[in-house]
Amino acid sequence: MTLAPWRPSLARALHRNRSRPYSRYLQLATLRPDGRPANRTVVFRGFMQDSNTLTLITDVRSEKVSHLAHQPWAEACWYFTETREQFRLTGTLQLIDANSQKAALQIARQQTWESLSDAARIQFTWPASGQPRAAQDAFEAPAPHPSLPLESFCLLLLLPTEVDHLELRGNPQTRTHHRITDLEQWVVEPINP
Amino acid sequence: MTLAPWRPSLARALHRNRSRPYSRYLQLATLRPDGRPANRTVVFRGFMQDSNTLTLITDVRSEKVSHLAHQPWAEACWYFTETREQFRLTGTLQLIDANSQKAALQIARQQTWESLSDAARIQFTWPASGQPRAAQDAFEAPAPHPSLPLESFCLLLLLPTEVDHLELRGNPQTRTHHRITDLEQWVVEPINP
Repeated sequence: MTLAPWRPSLARALHRNRSRPYSRYLQLATLRPDGRPANRTVVFRGFMQDSNTLTLITDVRSEKVSHLAHQPWAEACWYFTETREQFRLTGTLQLIDANSQKAALQIARQQTWESLSDAARIQFTWPASGQPRAAQDAFEAPAPHPSLPLESFCLLLLLPTEVDHLELRGNPQTRTHHRITDLEQWVVEPINP
Repeated sequence: MTLAPWRPSLARALHRNRSRPYSRYLQLATLRPDGRPANRTVVFRGFMQDSNTLTLITDVRSEKVSHLAHQPWAEACWYFTETREQFRLTGTLQLIDANSQKAALQIARQQTWESLSDAARIQFTWPASGQPRAAQDAFEAPAPHPSLPLESFCLLLLLPTEVDHLELRGNPQTRTHHRITDLEQWVVEPINP
């Protein structure tokens, strides 16, 4: 697969904003089963090798997993505070859980688990998020093995089919729309901000 | 109306993060008519007086206006980088355009227009956002009158019915869920992060 033309712009934004750890935080909108949108901050965990696919992680018990089972389409909004630019990435979500059969994706899940900090890994031992607050000792399980992903740990892939890049600097601002065609070609068009 | 119990938490976050101008930026998720979520950064313009209603602004020609005509439910995700906390505000959107009849809301629209900078006001003279890029001279209309809102200018209100407040500091993190009942009482519950 060829890299999409928005990849260099996003790589440049990540590089220029690298001094701010929260530059790897983006907001992911999904659809609730009741038809209302949901929106939360997630952490970018890098691209799948040689692809345009973003990797995120999630707990299999999290609400967004039930959302994507109903509606795999999502939109990420990623604002970079230092360079004042926004990427909106529209695409489908794909969940890689403990039961996923495809070897390459299971390897990616394993590698992502190994790349996490102990503090990040331990959260997958916690009681289910969003439930009434459990007692303190429910949060005190020992750290999981750094190379044995827990059942609750999932890789979450975002496969963009449209990317809208807005650069606030400049007057008027610069905005560029990218979309992939049925023939898997990216079409790039300057649009009004 | 009594102020909701999440208002002091949000006021505190706004105060503690006030040195960073982008602390007033939040991500607003809506639903496209085709059933896919959309997500973009918007600027918080303050609360409607003595209420729990957030004010935003939009151009009547913007995509989100067509979204809310189909589905008024939205979710805002607001991450504060200095204090490391997130508010998710679920609620309905209400558009106040040039034709809105309710006097109090038309006054609020007027006041918000007057509070904008010239640079913000002039954007409402620009060609429609998202369309193929217009020539440079289409962006060179004179600045509109500071007390005569253009037809394209709308106030956009977000009326939250649920607020999920996550504070990343602490181990485990603190997460509090607020929802309004049919009797207009706010119920507050600590939940698992």
